[in-house]
Amino acid sequence: MTPDDLRDLCRRLSAGDAAAATAVMARQAQLTKPPGSLGRLEELVAWLATWQRRAMPRLEQVEVLVFAGNHGVVARGVSPYPAAVTAQMVGNFDAGGAAINQLARQAGATLRVVPLALDRPTADMTEAPAMDEAEFMSAVTAGFEAVRPGTDLLALGEMGIGNTTAAAALSAGLFGGGGAEWAGRGTGIDDAGLQRKRAAIDAALTRHAGLRGDPLALAAALGGRELAAILGAVLAARMRGVPVLLDGFVATAAAAPLAALAPGGLDHAVISHLSAESGHQRLAEALGQVPLLSLGLRLGEASGAALAIPIVRGALACHAGMATFTQAGVDDRC
Amino acid sequence: MTPDDLRDLCRRLSAGDAAAATAVMARQAQLTKPPGSLGRLEELVAWLATWQRRAMPRLEQVEVLVFAGNHGVVARGVSPYPAAVTAQMVGNFDAGGAAINQLARQAGATLRVVPLALDRPTADMTEAPAMDEAEFMSAVTAGFEAVRPGTDLLALGEMGIGNTTAAAALSAGLFGGGGAEWAGRGTGIDDAGLQRKRAAIDAALTRHAGLRGDPLALAAALGGRELAAILGAVLAARMRGVPVLLDGFVATAAAAPLAALAPGGLDHAVISHLSAESGHQRLAEALGQVPLLSLGLRLGEASGAALAIPIVRGALACHAGMATFTQAGVDDRC
Repeated sequence: MTPDDLRDLCRRLSAGDAAAATAVMARQAQLTKPPGSLGRLEELVAWLATWQRRAMPRLEQVEVLVFAGNHGVVARGVSPYPAAVTAQMVGNFDAGGAAINQLARQAGATLRVVPLALDRPTADMTEAPAMDEAEFMSAVTAGFEAVRPGTDLLALGEMGIGNTTAAAALSAGLFGGGGAEWAGRGTGIDDAGLQRKRAAIDAALTRHAGLRGDPLALAAALGGRELAAILGAVLAARMRGVPVLLDGFVATAAAAPLAALAPGGLDHAVISHLSAESGHQRLAEALGQVPLLSLGLRLGEASGAALAIPIVRGALACHAGMATFTQAGVDDRC
Repeated sequence: MTPDDLRDLCRRLSAGDAAAATAVMARQAQLTKPPGSLGRLEELVAWLATWQRRAMPRLEQVEVLVFAGNHGVVARGVSPYPAAVTAQMVGNFDAGGAAINQLARQAGATLRVVPLALDRPTADMTEAPAMDEAEFMSAVTAGFEAVRPGTDLLALGEMGIGNTTAAAALSAGLFGGGGAEWAGRGTGIDDAGLQRKRAAIDAALTRHAGLRGDPLALAAALGGRELAAILGAVLAARMRGVPVLLDGFVATAAAAPLAALAPGGLDHAVISHLSAESGHQRLAEALGQVPLLSLGLRLGEASGAALAIPIVRGALACHAGMATFTQAGVDDRC
């Protein structure tokens, strides 16, 4: 894929199947419950139908995809953990010992982890673009190709020491503001570290100020490989009829350039969980979304997205399995 | 059980196992994640441990209990559905056609439905106490006896046309305010119906004003059989080491007298989902709780509580299944 291909794809996004959503709503009105009383569960089924392009959606193949990358900006002292932890945690994922292993299994989802050149961190964004064009496109393509056709629901997450700094910088580049507005404590940085993180974000924004208005160039300069891969995966999901659950702050920031490039560019992607990382609320508002869950997690790894999978399964189970008023012999409203 | 027995039980509630919770927190600190990064999942495991009195909680026997009752106050025009729907919906539960059937199965929980004298509605609370002492104690006892020892987690919900009126009246009796503060649209009453509902609540509060300060007498006068049964079940759960997930507004109001009678009386019961019914937010605040989920449901039937079960399962799966930093060879903080 060339950068021009990517720009083209982002600007000519497929529409959803409005007729499938209409069919869902017509069935919802007949089910044995007061109209609208299943709240967001009803919206979720219509959303599945819209993007799966099926009046009766299915959730047989549910996948959790976690991309991992390393960040040159870690040299600025923005994380309490050493960069080596990224590869160590990928080992932990492979061995089944991380939170996402348990949550994916609990949700009946397969888990795949895609490490991206972990031995070659991106450049320090305060000194240069994090990735040059070739590096950026390579990561986007890796994400794009990781999405398997036939997936019914895709939960996207990440692992990367330092990547809340990248997410904050990218969010600021796309939506305005700086380190003070977007930086949070990530994995738990102390006050001095938070000051360093804000300063690094502001320095990167100043250095790459000329890229304002070019979401993909911002994603290359301020992002990271795992963020670029998520962008590619979200784009592939749109083209392949796969609804997406975005995990927390980093995954949402990674996907945000798509919304900046095209109105409705993230309509097939639901923010699954409001991270405790402070920038996420601001980012969700900028994208016009209310996250499904708010349980105070700030782990990444697609953990919040995996927790939302049973909610989506519950929504579909109600839609598919409930009796209508007529079938059940229940009186409708007086 | 006599009323005096009940009062005694409510005032001498068992404490949880603080040592089990401490053991949970000690293990959490070793797992491969930044401290606290699983947010409420960590609190949920400590809560399970506290009330199951086990350092490693289990979730093998998870049960959903739905109590159903009918309400004389329906004669005041407080619901858009006829009272006959309560029994019809119990038939729908038995046939597997309701939302809760799908959600309980999805959550890996058994479902039991306990109808309570559906052919004998409570008295109209605007004219008399909804239940006399014998009727109230009979319903409390039915709920108490429905809780099976060995249950690892109990989700409590209800069905009863007109019961958001009872829940609003009981909440007002316990915590102050009147129909204007506590009445919502329930299953979807129109503006004129909402006025009738508020007026019925205010009339009942005036009639039973002498009972202020006596939570159990208020539960008899303003509640309903299914609410009284939930109160009995919550009390039995406390005595039998069973953590409870309370469903929406009605289930929370039903349990609230326990909090009014004893500090910490609902510590073993988590409000699982914030109902779209307007009084629930106020009631959750009065009880000092933040509901786990907020998905806009307003159905009852334990639907919100059932949706929370997979969240609790996810919390325990992480706690039980994750590797420690040492086991995984992952570096802890710098």
